[in-house]
Amino acid sequence: MPDLRKDPITGRWVIIATDRARRPDDFTRESVVPKNGRLCPFCVGNESKTPPEVLAYRTGGASNHEGWHLRVVPNKFPALRVEGSLDRQGEGLYDRMNGIGAHEVIIESTNHKASPGALTEKEYEDTYFAFRDRMLDLKKDRRLRYILIFKNYGENAGATLEHPHSQLIALPVVPKRVIEEMDGAKRHFDYRERCIYCDIIQHESQSQQRVVLETDQFTVICPYASRFPFEVWIMPRRHASHFETIETSAVRNLAWVTRVLMRKMEKALESPPFNMILSTAPVQDAPYDHTHWHIQIIPKLTRVAGFEWGTGFYINPTPPEEAARFLREIGLP
Amino acid sequence: MPDLRKDPITGRWVIIATDRARRPDDFTRESVVPKNGRLCPFCVGNESKTPPEVLAYRTGGASNHEGWHLRVVPNKFPALRVEGSLDRQGEGLYDRMNGIGAHEVIIESTNHKASPGALTEKEYEDTYFAFRDRMLDLKKDRRLRYILIFKNYGENAGATLEHPHSQLIALPVVPKRVIEEMDGAKRHFDYRERCIYCDIIQHESQSQQRVVLETDQFTVICPYASRFPFEVWIMPRRHASHFETIETSAVRNLAWVTRVLMRKMEKALESPPFNMILSTAPVQDAPYDHTHWHIQIIPKLTRVAGFEWGTGFYINPTPPEEAARFLREIGLP
Repeated sequence: MPDLRKDPITGRWVIIATDRARRPDDFTRESVVPKNGRLCPFCVGNESKTPPEVLAYRTGGASNHEGWHLRVVPNKFPALRVEGSLDRQGEGLYDRMNGIGAHEVIIESTNHKASPGALTEKEYEDTYFAFRDRMLDLKKDRRLRYILIFKNYGENAGATLEHPHSQLIALPVVPKRVIEEMDGAKRHFDYRERCIYCDIIQHESQSQQRVVLETDQFTVICPYASRFPFEVWIMPRRHASHFETIETSAVRNLAWVTRVLMRKMEKALESPPFNMILSTAPVQDAPYDHTHWHIQIIPKLTRVAGFEWGTGFYINPTPPEEAARFLREIGLP
Repeated sequence: MPDLRKDPITGRWVIIATDRARRPDDFTRESVVPKNGRLCPFCVGNESKTPPEVLAYRTGGASNHEGWHLRVVPNKFPALRVEGSLDRQGEGLYDRMNGIGAHEVIIESTNHKASPGALTEKEYEDTYFAFRDRMLDLKKDRRLRYILIFKNYGENAGATLEHPHSQLIALPVVPKRVIEEMDGAKRHFDYRERCIYCDIIQHESQSQQRVVLETDQFTVICPYASRFPFEVWIMPRRHASHFETIETSAVRNLAWVTRVLMRKMEKALESPPFNMILSTAPVQDAPYDHTHWHIQIIPKLTRVAGFEWGTGFYINPTPPEEAARFLREIGLP
């Protein structure tokens, strides 16, 4: 059972894997990703190589067999497990609890080699539908307080498998980053009685300076205090704190927006590695007036990504105004 | 003049380089580090390739010529500049100020190829003396509120030059990570009237479970809620909030401790890339009872370093107890 441990200074929770603890040798011997489609556990025909699916969108076929176009499966080496009890304990100065939770993989396509720009609009649609479906299902387990959905694309962004996929981690605690964002948004709301994200959307939409792309439902911007070059946020124009409340028409528009953005990024930055994070409110909480779900996309472009890594301080060599202009102006065939 | 911009949600300050803004092409064309000693601006004989030194420890020779064994020089491409006024401004929703500050490089050795384990005890001593000297000097500029000292070792940890060096960034704001650590430590102090770091040192020193190395002046541990495999903290046993108040005998002991730790890490983990951060109190503040300077060392071992990168949530595959035991037991010649 993995351990969830709380940093006594900052209050940050960390998952410590105790089962398959890695010894120093494991790091140096770390093997290279299988690049060959036939060995890929996410490819059609290899369904038996993953744990049984928890969700699949199919045109035919039986569970855990061919015929799917999107599958969600538990991670084979999960960081957290559903079985067991939370069991909060003190350990002298320290706090710990059992690593209860879920760790799932959303296999977004049957096309092993599809880059984010090559995924179809339908595949993006299904991916977002799957995010919603899994959140609504996991929410029923009242122990799970936050659902973290993210995508690492490219080895430099931490991806260990090439096949298009996102990950979902359901946690019995709310990550510190989320609490910080919520606290900050709350301060703004307390003072102005307005959602800061709604204010940002309105401001950016008016000035257009940092807008990459806009529809009637979504505004895509490079944020004013971007931590990274070409950092991009996709923000729903209509206020909602929880992603899982998204309606079907918005999913469809979001799929279109994401695909256009990905194609622009691929063209502008030559298929950069990136991290995508879905920022949403804790799943057990009632709707908030002060938080607003959105998607953050962070290309990993700088060699010097090490700087902020340890210090928590960011130096961004590309002003967001220029990044936005560049992405806005790039033409697509 | 670089821009300091405040994230309106979290309150985090970010440096946005506006002078030499990097366009998308700059990232793909990014050149490889000169590995050849003769081209290295930090090597003896190449003193004219850096801006004039702000500090040097010499056995002979004139300023900016040979004869030094440690040099501190302004960064040739500084993230912040000393000239100008702070000039805080609102921009609609947003806050910005001029990027006033300093960005310096501490050249720790004349030996271009020395790995951290190959640096001498004297070189570590001088490096720590240089940290202290530069902090005491920069502190006189009352605009500078925090001095960030860090080292990136190895390309994977963000180093762009091979020659042994650390970096110093003096900021007109206190980084969010520092504020968080201080707030957390304050909560503990308010409740228990004791420094949390002193409590941790006492607890760890008694249990020995996570201790790597200990002298009468320093305790070296793998922290309970380590974010990364083989994360190590060097903590002074005597309470002090500000690094720059360190005494000479403690500098000497710290140099010995650092060198032993670096040799152990090199042997155990085969010269891993790492980030080192000096965690200390804001330089203009009076001494605090609740904060305690220390050094954090974070080897970059996991391929999957991308996970926490975007999410702010950490999964550590190596329990700190095992990491500490491994480093403790490794023998040195």
